[in-house]
Amino acid sequence: MKNQQPLLHRDTFRLEFGAGEPPLAHWAQQMKRSMLREMLAVVARPGILSFAGGLPAPELFPTNEYAQVTAHVLATDPAALQYGPPYVPLKRHIVHLMAERGVSCHEEQVFLTSGAQQGLDILARLFLDPGSPVILEERVYTGIQQAVAPLEPQILTVTTDLETGMDVEAVAAYLEQGTRPALIYVNADCHNPLGVSLSLEKRRRLVELACRYGVPIVEDDPYGFLHYDGRAQPPLAAFDNRCVFYLGSFSKILAPALRLGWMVAPEALIPKLTVIKEANDLESSAFTQRAVCAYLDAGHLPAHVDDLCREYRRRRDAMLAALERYFPAEARWTRPAGGMFIWVELPGRLDTVALLKLAVEREKVAFIPGTAFCADQRPLLTGELCRAAHCLRLNFSNCTPERIEDGVRRLGRIVASEFGHR
Amino acid sequence: MKNQQPLLHRDTFRLEFGAGEPPLAHWAQQMKRSMLREMLAVVARPGILSFAGGLPAPELFPTNEYAQVTAHVLATDPAALQYGPPYVPLKRHIVHLMAERGVSCHEEQVFLTSGAQQGLDILARLFLDPGSPVILEERVYTGIQQAVAPLEPQILTVTTDLETGMDVEAVAAYLEQGTRPALIYVNADCHNPLGVSLSLEKRRRLVELACRYGVPIVEDDPYGFLHYDGRAQPPLAAFDNRCVFYLGSFSKILAPALRLGWMVAPEALIPKLTVIKEANDLESSAFTQRAVCAYLDAGHLPAHVDDLCREYRRRRDAMLAALERYFPAEARWTRPAGGMFIWVELPGRLDTVALLKLAVEREKVAFIPGTAFCADQRPLLTGELCRAAHCLRLNFSNCTPERIEDGVRRLGRIVASEFGHR
Repeated sequence: MKNQQPLLHRDTFRLEFGAGEPPLAHWAQQMKRSMLREMLAVVARPGILSFAGGLPAPELFPTNEYAQVTAHVLATDPAALQYGPPYVPLKRHIVHLMAERGVSCHEEQVFLTSGAQQGLDILARLFLDPGSPVILEERVYTGIQQAVAPLEPQILTVTTDLETGMDVEAVAAYLEQGTRPALIYVNADCHNPLGVSLSLEKRRRLVELACRYGVPIVEDDPYGFLHYDGRAQPPLAAFDNRCVFYLGSFSKILAPALRLGWMVAPEALIPKLTVIKEANDLESSAFTQRAVCAYLDAGHLPAHVDDLCREYRRRRDAMLAALERYFPAEARWTRPAGGMFIWVELPGRLDTVALLKLAVEREKVAFIPGTAFCADQRPLLTGELCRAAHCLRLNFSNCTPERIEDGVRRLGRIVASEFGHR
Repeated sequence: MKNQQPLLHRDTFRLEFGAGEPPLAHWAQQMKRSMLREMLAVVARPGILSFAGGLPAPELFPTNEYAQVTAHVLATDPAALQYGPPYVPLKRHIVHLMAERGVSCHEEQVFLTSGAQQGLDILARLFLDPGSPVILEERVYTGIQQAVAPLEPQILTVTTDLETGMDVEAVAAYLEQGTRPALIYVNADCHNPLGVSLSLEKRRRLVELACRYGVPIVEDDPYGFLHYDGRAQPPLAAFDNRCVFYLGSFSKILAPALRLGWMVAPEALIPKLTVIKEANDLESSAFTQRAVCAYLDAGHLPAHVDDLCREYRRRRDAMLAALERYFPAEARWTRPAGGMFIWVELPGRLDTVALLKLAVEREKVAFIPGTAFCADQRPLLTGELCRAAHCLRLNFSNCTPERIEDGVRRLGRIVASEFGHR
């Protein structure tokens, strides 16, 4: 690279200009970092016992097996490092994974993405015009808010029952009044942040409504394979394959750094999805697609997912037991059937943003305040308390049962000291 | 995963609905696959000698070295497969790479992307409001067209001189008349598809204009390290770091399947870029970032880039010699100082779309017709010939000199037979 010497000495050449920064798009001027991301940055200090992030347990990653398949693919597949079309053998594996979730599809409906977040982004572009209405739950995964934000949508919210999930009759009311949202976002299994799974009756009703009114459902299902009690429910995509756009991911069942997920969509829309993805990042890594495919070829996944479920069940149970032991009797929390999160509602008009500060300073333990997940951020701006201000999200997948017991004990001490309970 | 049995038999449960497909966003209804992508699919048949794609030479990929660094990273870095923030040691390497291009920046200005295409997409979102004007060259990389398409921009075009590059005075005229484009897209070095590099005088003038009028330049520089004759020019980013947003990529100097690139941007805008990227795909692979960093740590890159330049120079020279030998005297073509492409203008009112069909059928050789790169696709729709209809783009990086000689000979035969030359 000796040719790369510049022709000029920059010191003598730098131009001097008067103008300021280039103007940004309207939405980008308003844009703020999500409170979730800000808080994750704040609590990522050494020595903090964190229930804040949504991180899988790194000690459970199939690192050795993945090292084997990457070495094998690089040694044997000359197309591994090149540009290439979506890898069909991987799509075939995904068809089988979907069948395990009760979803019947064929490989032409499988669309590979760089993680489920990219699926959200692509579907937002496919469906939203500027200012379009979208239906979200009041407490919702922040990634969907970020994906729709550039279109400056009208956010319509519905509440969520902590035992049966989304208020589907509120969705029905919007639709019956003539509202036609560009999409309805649903986390039917092991909701992030709430931990609840949608009841079977509500699943059926929601899909029926969406199809009747021709409104797409974006079903975000990162945790659908992480189920700890009895049988999983079929996802919404099991009931329909025209109105439900299913998003799956290898992030939680293999590893986040693969940045590989998938969508199941009507075959007729795959060409449009492809154009949007090309604009987005051209394509997902041919190498990663082949490595994950080789991992699946080797038959490693079922035992690995069983291992994950066994360990995460222990961690969930440890957290539920510790909450019972150390949290005030008036507090309520969800009992998730899977996934990674428990949602806690503290009694009274408590502010968990203030609580977090104390918890980090005094007890070196962290969580995410409920407010971070409010779909409608306007109450924050006007000074009103969001209806999740007394709530918090706890992650149980990233700590051992022993640390969970210890951390919830410390957190319970702060809650008790601040609010005079126990 | 034995828990994943569905509760229901889908055959008896599938719901029947009356409504059709969900409605799409306005721009998505109009969206077409780019002609480039369609043609790449058409010519990707076995037995075709293709100068069509923009593929690097797979036999030159540093596969063994990359296998070593991936194995090393997986064996030693417990954060390799987890979610994680952008990897600062990799940013430090990029600061040094940029210094070799004559660009002085610090690591807080380096923003990692999933390839340069993602950089285009993120900058389109940052700068474009719906309907915003953008300035493109008449013949332009299709990826920028795809990135801006969702905003339904007003495309303003300028011509390109095949020896000195973009008509910068035409840009000046737009700006002086009061037009304020949301961005100006520039491929200053080894233009795709034209192969030309912008003259030093035009670089200086263009940056001066952009800064004076506060208009951002998006400098797409995938080929800046692939320079075959003497010294490379400094990129636009060497003259300014407020109005020029530089995009680099490891796709052409290491391998496309890494899906890793970078942006150099004003530090004050990095938080906004981060929010847009989170919406897009959360983050780029922590594993790939660490593997590429380990490759750079090992000091492999300079010798590898020298090897690439040596071989690609041979291929370019073979193609230029074959064009001289086999193409009609009236044809013109560019003599690129680097990159991967030669642009050929055939004499008369020739239609290279028709020529491609014959070339593939009779001679089993492929290229991309110039029309595929027209920034303003309206002439295509109204039936007028685009001003690139007699042109074609040839890739020289993906074939050996022997195959290049053979392929250009076959292509020359078709050109001669169709148009009576030689």
